Amino acid sequence: MTVNTQVLLKSRPAGKPTIDNFEIIDTTIPGIKNGQILTRTIYLSLDPYMRGRMSDAKSYAEPVPVGSIMIGGAVGIVEESKNDKFEEGDIVVTHTGWQSHAICDGRGVRKLTPSSAPISTALGVLGMPGMTSYVGLKHIGLPVEGETLVVAAATGPVGATVGQIAKIKGCRTVGIAGGAEKCAYAEDELGFDACINHKSNNFTDELAAACPNGIDIYWENVAGPVLEAVIPHLNFFSRIPVCGLISQYSMTELPSGKDYLPLLMRCILTNRTRVQGFIVTDYNTDFKEFISTMTSWVESKRVIFKEHRIRGLESAPEGLLELLEGNNFGKTIVEVSEDPTV
Amino acid sequence: MTVNTQVLLKSRPAGKPTIDNFEIIDTTIPGIKNGQILTRTIYLSLDPYMRGRMSDAKSYAEPVPVGSIMIGGAVGIVEESKNDKFEEGDIVVTHTGWQSHAICDGRGVRKLTPSSAPISTALGVLGMPGMTSYVGLKHIGLPVEGETLVVAAATGPVGATVGQIAKIKGCRTVGIAGGAEKCAYAEDELGFDACINHKSNNFTDELAAACPNGIDIYWENVAGPVLEAVIPHLNFFSRIPVCGLISQYSMTELPSGKDYLPLLMRCILTNRTRVQGFIVTDYNTDFKEFISTMTSWVESKRVIFKEHRIRGLESAPEGLLELLEGNNFGKTIVEVSEDPTV
Repeated sequence: MTVNTQVLLKSRPAGKPTIDNFEIIDTTIPGIKNGQILTRTIYLSLDPYMRGRMSDAKSYAEPVPVGSIMIGGAVGIVEESKNDKFEEGDIVVTHTGWQSHAICDGRGVRKLTPSSAPISTALGVLGMPGMTSYVGLKHIGLPVEGETLVVAAATGPVGATVGQIAKIKGCRTVGIAGGAEKCAYAEDELGFDACINHKSNNFTDELAAACPNGIDIYWENVAGPVLEAVIPHLNFFSRIPVCGLISQYSMTELPSGKDYLPLLMRCILTNRTRVQGFIVTDYNTDFKEFISTMTSWVESKRVIFKEHRIRGLESAPEGLLELLEGNNFGKTIVEVSEDPTV
Repeated sequence: MTVNTQVLLKSRPAGKPTIDNFEIIDTTIPGIKNGQILTRTIYLSLDPYMRGRMSDAKSYAEPVPVGSIMIGGAVGIVEESKNDKFEEGDIVVTHTGWQSHAICDGRGVRKLTPSSAPISTALGVLGMPGMTSYVGLKHIGLPVEGETLVVAAATGPVGATVGQIAKIKGCRTVGIAGGAEKCAYAEDELGFDACINHKSNNFTDELAAACPNGIDIYWENVAGPVLEAVIPHLNFFSRIPVCGLISQYSMTELPSGKDYLPLLMRCILTNRTRVQGFIVTDYNTDFKEFISTMTSWVESKRVIFKEHRIRGLESAPEGLLELLEGNNFGKTIVEVSEDPTV
């Protein structure tokens, strides 16, 4: 009998999560019933939103119950099917979470059609992070030729795609990333007009210098000191799509010191800035448009991507902790089992 | 020769403005040239935005230069006209500021057509504050039947109108005001479902109790502690039209203590809240629609209004200071000279 390895949420983190918040167990796989499919996970996606699901604070999604499998998107292969819609060997995108195998009824499972892109991109540029970038710009960022867009975590899967789409739309694009290597990649490979190292002592001045015409769109992935540095440069009618807040996910209480809320509110009033949160699933009806447009951009290399590969499901907890510290370089993909397409 | 009394901005305030920031002078009125009109000010409007124009911080409008006439909307009567579009005796709305008389070329001057409402309403419910309420709800607040709207400064000209429009749209309306008398007026006369006294020791609890289904629209007039109390109750897809920030206009530095910015950002992300600043003049094309709709609401008493009258132009500086402290009760109107229509 095949063993199913699963990573469970063992406890809720108080502040920064640790390895001890996870537990790895082996279970056995029961036979599947009519209507079900058995999938073997090939790639597991690690994403910042997972930090939110580890907590039970009010949010847009239910938290992962303690003792349950960590949620997450995955690419797998159908090993057995008693569902008319799937055949053995189908490559599928699922939401079956952090486990080596899964049984499900096929709902929410999408078959991957052959493409020139590797199947792992269904978790990145051609998946949730890519679509997040696409719909956030389409509905909130609203890039206009000649405007300046700033995005932090610029070499991550969302930031990199946001920057490249904004470039296609004719914007000046300024990335923010942690370290010289990432900044060089953002400028040389991703085509950002500039990329500023947020670890630099002169970060604020360098950001200002990179935005001589101010900032029209600030794509919010991180909040914290980056947001505080951006606010004084926001232009009239600027937009801030709020996609993530990685710097504050593990905050246990409001920080002491200056209160920056009046600074943001004043900026919003005097510039008529629009700040709006969103979740990719709010725009599911855009999926066909997204996948068609983005596939053509990827095939023509107008949009490129970079993966940060981790080997083995048992490495996923450490991989998520590293991601939350910004120690990934590109889209974090866990190689769970062999990819038959390469 | 007629004397023109003018109130000048003498100096920029450091923090709270004082009487010493203003200077009252008497000048003489020159003869008017072809194309010009001479108006006598009947009513001068005092509004919170004037605090912003006293400062030279970056904003949506140019500051009043030191030594110049304070800006402001007024209702006047044409005393002399060398402009084909105006006749002696016309009642007009102007932007001629804090002075007893003015000469202008007629641009931006609107003739008041006879209406069942007093001419001073052209500075209130049928003027800038009323239109601010109308367009802010139409374009950003987007009230839907059954939703809950919260507005502070609920007996001021904007807050009162916002609450009454939201009621017409079928919302539960919760006002916030300073003192029992204002709260009683908001509930008994303006039709708010509840009005909470922000000076109450139990303000936060009382606000929560008044919003059993959370808050869908928070109309921002004030910021500060009211905003902090509202944030935890905001619903999914809530909207915050940012119209004013009266609690922080005279702030000289960011306050020390807790940093509430992460609280707002988390709220925006997890609720997909939209926070957006606006200025009434961004929506000038809505004027005809506004004036037609609001006039019918005022005539049918579906929207009522209250004025806080001050006598004499020389009282305007003190009137503005009182307004900024929340000591007005209704729309502040300075009676500058006799109203021939009453």
